[in-house]
Amino acid sequence: MNKYYLPLENVKIRDSFWSPIQNLVMDVVIPYQEKILNDEIPGVEKSHALANFRIAAGLEEGEFYGMVFQDSDVAKWLEGVAYALALRPDKALMERADQVIDVIEKAQQPDGYLNTFFTIKEPQHRWQNLLECHELYCAGHMMEAAAAYYEATGKDRLLHVMERMADHIIERFGPEEGKVKGVPGHEEVEIGLMRLYQVTGKEKYYLQAKYFIDQRGQEPNYFVEECRKRDWRHFGMGPENLSYLQAHLPVREQETAEGHSVRAVYLYTAMAAIARESHDQSLYDACLKLWDNITQKRMYITGGIGSTVDGEAFTIDYDLPNDSIYAETCASIGLVFFARQLLECRPTGKVADVMERALYNGILSGMQLDGKRFFYVNPLEVNLGVSGKLYGYRHVLPKRPGWYTCACCPPNVVRLITSLGKYAFTETEDAIYTHLYLGGTASFSRADISVESNYPWEGKIRFLVRGKEQKEFTLAVRVPGWAKNVHLTVNGEEGQVSVIRDGYYYLRRLWTEEDKVELSFDLPVRRIYANTAVRADAGCTAFQRGPIVYCFEGTDNGKELQALRIPADAEIRTEVCQEGILKGMVLLKIQGLRMEGSDELYSEAPPQAVEELLTAVPYFAWGNREEGQMRVWMRE
Amino acid sequence: MNKYYLPLENVKIRDSFWSPIQNLVMDVVIPYQEKILNDEIPGVEKSHALANFRIAAGLEEGEFYGMVFQDSDVAKWLEGVAYALALRPDKALMERADQVIDVIEKAQQPDGYLNTFFTIKEPQHRWQNLLECHELYCAGHMMEAAAAYYEATGKDRLLHVMERMADHIIERFGPEEGKVKGVPGHEEVEIGLMRLYQVTGKEKYYLQAKYFIDQRGQEPNYFVEECRKRDWRHFGMGPENLSYLQAHLPVREQETAEGHSVRAVYLYTAMAAIARESHDQSLYDACLKLWDNITQKRMYITGGIGSTVDGEAFTIDYDLPNDSIYAETCASIGLVFFARQLLECRPTGKVADVMERALYNGILSGMQLDGKRFFYVNPLEVNLGVSGKLYGYRHVLPKRPGWYTCACCPPNVVRLITSLGKYAFTETEDAIYTHLYLGGTASFSRADISVESNYPWEGKIRFLVRGKEQKEFTLAVRVPGWAKNVHLTVNGEEGQVSVIRDGYYYLRRLWTEEDKVELSFDLPVRRIYANTAVRADAGCTAFQRGPIVYCFEGTDNGKELQALRIPADAEIRTEVCQEGILKGMVLLKIQGLRMEGSDELYSEAPPQAVEELLTAVPYFAWGNREEGQMRVWMRE
Repeated sequence: MNKYYLPLENVKIRDSFWSPIQNLVMDVVIPYQEKILNDEIPGVEKSHALANFRIAAGLEEGEFYGMVFQDSDVAKWLEGVAYALALRPDKALMERADQVIDVIEKAQQPDGYLNTFFTIKEPQHRWQNLLECHELYCAGHMMEAAAAYYEATGKDRLLHVMERMADHIIERFGPEEGKVKGVPGHEEVEIGLMRLYQVTGKEKYYLQAKYFIDQRGQEPNYFVEECRKRDWRHFGMGPENLSYLQAHLPVREQETAEGHSVRAVYLYTAMAAIARESHDQSLYDACLKLWDNITQKRMYITGGIGSTVDGEAFTIDYDLPNDSIYAETCASIGLVFFARQLLECRPTGKVADVMERALYNGILSGMQLDGKRFFYVNPLEVNLGVSGKLYGYRHVLPKRPGWYTCACCPPNVVRLITSLGKYAFTETEDAIYTHLYLGGTASFSRADISVESNYPWEGKIRFLVRGKEQKEFTLAVRVPGWAKNVHLTVNGEEGQVSVIRDGYYYLRRLWTEEDKVELSFDLPVRRIYANTAVRADAGCTAFQRGPIVYCFEGTDNGKELQALRIPADAEIRTEVCQEGILKGMVLLKIQGLRMEGSDELYSEAPPQAVEELLTAVPYFAWGNREEGQMRVWMRE
Repeated sequence: MNKYYLPLENVKIRDSFWSPIQNLVMDVVIPYQEKILNDEIPGVEKSHALANFRIAAGLEEGEFYGMVFQDSDVAKWLEGVAYALALRPDKALMERADQVIDVIEKAQQPDGYLNTFFTIKEPQHRWQNLLECHELYCAGHMMEAAAAYYEATGKDRLLHVMERMADHIIERFGPEEGKVKGVPGHEEVEIGLMRLYQVTGKEKYYLQAKYFIDQRGQEPNYFVEECRKRDWRHFGMGPENLSYLQAHLPVREQETAEGHSVRAVYLYTAMAAIARESHDQSLYDACLKLWDNITQKRMYITGGIGSTVDGEAFTIDYDLPNDSIYAETCASIGLVFFARQLLECRPTGKVADVMERALYNGILSGMQLDGKRFFYVNPLEVNLGVSGKLYGYRHVLPKRPGWYTCACCPPNVVRLITSLGKYAFTETEDAIYTHLYLGGTASFSRADISVESNYPWEGKIRFLVRGKEQKEFTLAVRVPGWAKNVHLTVNGEEGQVSVIRDGYYYLRRLWTEEDKVELSFDLPVRRIYANTAVRADAGCTAFQRGPIVYCFEGTDNGKELQALRIPADAEIRTEVCQEGILKGMVLLKIQGLRMEGSDELYSEAPPQAVEELLTAVPYFAWGNREEGQMRVWMRE
């Protein structure tokens, strides 16, 4: 167990970029989602998730409503509430959360079982359909919530509920004689069990998580056997496509990211956590292979993953369509989870770069700037009349809806943003790594570290290190792979270290009570080119400044964005937006060209270039103004 | 009724391009398809179409097998056989066709009804589901076959069978009190009835066709009413999407081509035929609007139509994806039917240009050069690992299959190619129009016209006009809209006419027994640009020489065709292929560039151009060598 685990409350965030977003989540999103879970917001998809628990608890009459994994919405919301309480005390919120926990406890069955769908609707079918029915998935999320709530508040009621559920699971599933050799259809319980292990120290939870990982994809395949044994299906899914749920091979033999992308990255997250705990090199190697496959062949520039709506899945290497994309918000969040676990195994700048890419782009785009609308799918291109309307594009909505029938993404954003402090640092035997430039203060046993910056808009980060022990340790300061003209000073002096190793400056010294480390780098606008194997991006370029990916919207750039061209030597200015919803964001003003052609459908007349001043806005902020076309990749 | 109707046997084709294809169809395709209809070819989709007729005729025991419109495969094959017999006598083939007709006659019910599905399988459901069940569609195809067989052989047995079926239809459907106000779900019977009218002169068939056209889309909508009345469905289709079958509006009010593209163009073909017969300006105007909408906003450069597999349908203006395309062979064939009827109404070069575009490209691509494999979908881009495999692209096969469960396209190609002579000329009150440069001789009452050319590979066409009457008439010679440096001589003298009007040179004179007209034009390789509203083609160019559209295949040009670029000033040579399956075709050799970029997925290093000599082959011949990537639109 990681003895350098940093409790969230030890990180106090005061960041010019993230604090307003965290406040929005706490002030608006959490109460809004609470209302939705209570069916108090008219005009959006009905949730009924809290009512399901009340019904299962015998507190209310009624029918189960929603997806078979509806419980997980409550779990993720509760986990977000826990992180919010760690960020900022809120007695009223805690009381409401306690009431929810009270209901959850009452919904638990005498044997420890907790799941409202099966308790209310199909008690005879408990544990018979791991392939489709998400019981372990819901349990995993509630374990995460329980651990977080315990850490934030010291209250252990939900923790005990979930320990009982975990024990019930351990009793039922495992390698031992007499137990069912089941594995979850949708991975997540492995993460939840590791969290239980983290807060309770009880090894059985780690061993159970490890069992689920080791058993996955083994022959005889559990899902094939399970389907043979039962005569009913829930969604109608059979065991034909085992790669959909990463059960096509033992996990250590998997080399490419396959199937449902959220399931995949949740699995890999648990694999990395267990590899670290068990010092399992083969498992860690598998994680690295999968990571490389995703980030070098199957990831959008925004950190989005999942190229197709068909199974919400990965497809093949370099198949990254921008308009029929899936790139579920949850999948990018899962990629961040995976990144964090890899950073815990061994910090490398490349992994942190991807984590940052997903955070500032494909995840943040999942939420409207007002916190009340959410994307499930995060496209890199939308076209009016096509996106959200035509076959193959119906899932690509041009506008964030208020809620979803399958509402996994909105509460996932909540729990990630409220727990952002967990992603900023890694502590090891002899070093503190700082991955993100999250403004605020982090309190370690060795030192308190304060960070000040106007990142991601400016490339100057000031660390104030207040050493607490009379012992040397290393402060490892991440330098983004894309940073230009990098300088580092310690107490105003340059040349303290000169080599960036695997993406970090390593500063080893005896830290006093007031050492200043200043990192600076330029943030030029960078033109990015995709690998020529990526068909969708051929001949195109995208723009990035710092970690921020930019996009072009119809509202700024008129119609037919595909007819715009940005010459290789185009003049690009940055401009801080002075008004409206994008106020304070750095926009790009680019001298581009509009190709104007014949009115004919096909013509021999080549389109002629006419100069046009174009505006690019941060990708995460797209879709916050009038509905229109949008593109990330522009013709060069 | 058109008194200038030219029987097919009056056109004797001896054309260096088309005659080998016609011979292939007669020597290989017709016997091959006959075997398939008789289930004698192993390893391809089972047809059972002739067995269905034998079973319905009581000659054989068994079950119906196949689609509800399986009969139409026999009808289209028989129609092709009829045209083949007009091209070239073949006693054995005629005898076999006569035997088939004998079975068809025996399968007809005492009341004239003919349809093997309902006769064998669901006699109680006859005529109750026009929305889904294709009874009128199958009847229409058999009427076309009957008319063609009568014209080719003088034998009227099938004609009488289909007259009885037509009378049965007239008795049942129509505007009169007591009749059902039904219209076909899949248009075609209107065309068949017009053909019956043409060969029998019986006005009732024309009036019935006109009724079906006039009634379509009227309120109360027949399909809505029909669905309300019956408690069963065939495919499960309801009347929600009336535009799928062009029943959303009265036909004269339809302004955009909507729904299933084959149905649409079959409807428009009948509309144009009836507009001409009835001198109905409003109907003709509707045809022109629909034609313009298709050809100016919804047609691929190959003459393919139908942008989506979802309903095999048109989508919206300028939505022309190359890789998820539908472009069914039948739809392009229907576009040629429509064009021909418009040319009968009023010859215009633009219409003939489109007819030619479809013929030489999107239709011919439907058949393997060996005549034994067929495309249903004719893509403009295929990518290995994606086309035919991934969601959204599964219908886009990278290789022609031997047969299909729904085998509408292969026999449609047969009947079109064997009847090509019908598309070459239009005769009017005072003129003979020559649309195509089909080598051979056409025999009109006014004159015999011989044509010699090496079109489409060369732009020199020699007409020999042998006048038969001592009366002036006009020979209108089409000049393709894309022709460059056009010259026309009459008996060696230039300047006989100087103006091309609506795509034709009009030569009015007293024709002697040996007047020579020579038309010549250059056939440079033309770069084509799509309208900037077409997203899929932005930044790209396609290549055409004469009517032939070119494409680039992986087998000639290596991997990653999307990484190739063809500079605006690239040197292009033509080269006649000297060996292999493409022997004799004009290929393009183009000095292009390959963009070679970083191995990274995303990189700041712009791809660098490396010169590469590229080869383009005629689009219709693609997929005849090893399987690989293919693109029509190339980055410029």
